[in-house]
Amino acid sequence: MSSLSREPNTVFIGRKPPMSYVLAVITLFSAGNTEVTLKARGQAITTAVDAAEITRRRFMKDANIGKITIGTEEIKQEEGGTRMVSTIEITLARE
Amino acid sequence: MSSLSREPNTVFIGRKPPMSYVLAVITLFSAGNTEVTLKARGQAITTAVDAAEITRRRFMKDANIGKITIGTEEIKQEEGGTRMVSTIEITLARE
Repeated sequence: MSSLSREPNTVFIGRKPPMSYVLAVITLFSAGNTEVTLKARGQAITTAVDAAEITRRRFMKDANIGKITIGTEEIKQEEGGTRMVSTIEITLARE
Repeated sequence: MSSLSREPNTVFIGRKPPMSYVLAVITLFSAGNTEVTLKARGQAITTAVDAAEITRRRFMKDANIGKITIGTEEIKQEEGGTRMVSTIEITLARE
């Protein structure tokens, strides 16, 4: 699953529905990780919050929201130049 | 400005462009508040992150991101029933 491969314990949020990423988070916890981080930028930020909330409210009631950080990244545009995009990282921790 | 009125020191993020809310945040800081909270739900979550980032990176370099919390609210639908929507609260603090 490509959303799992680039960094350990990390799920990169894209344009799929939140449940796709909930499943990725559950997979990582089931593999023995005690922390899983969701990373998103731009419009996917809302999906990241949805996925974190669905995970802890519906599927893993022992998972807590840990650190949440926001930031800004510069993105190179195909037509030249750069634009700024907001980012979020949400860490879910399981006892 | 309706986005300022319901709670003190709080800007409610809706469907306007991020700069509308940046101006509301700056107005509250300029009035002497040392903390301002941005509240958003659903798709407006991304706009809240954009507004917080634009405020501290472009306009108020002495403002820091404080507490960030996410949650879920139940919304009553016009056609009956309820649906869940994710929420975010971002507090900006100025020294």
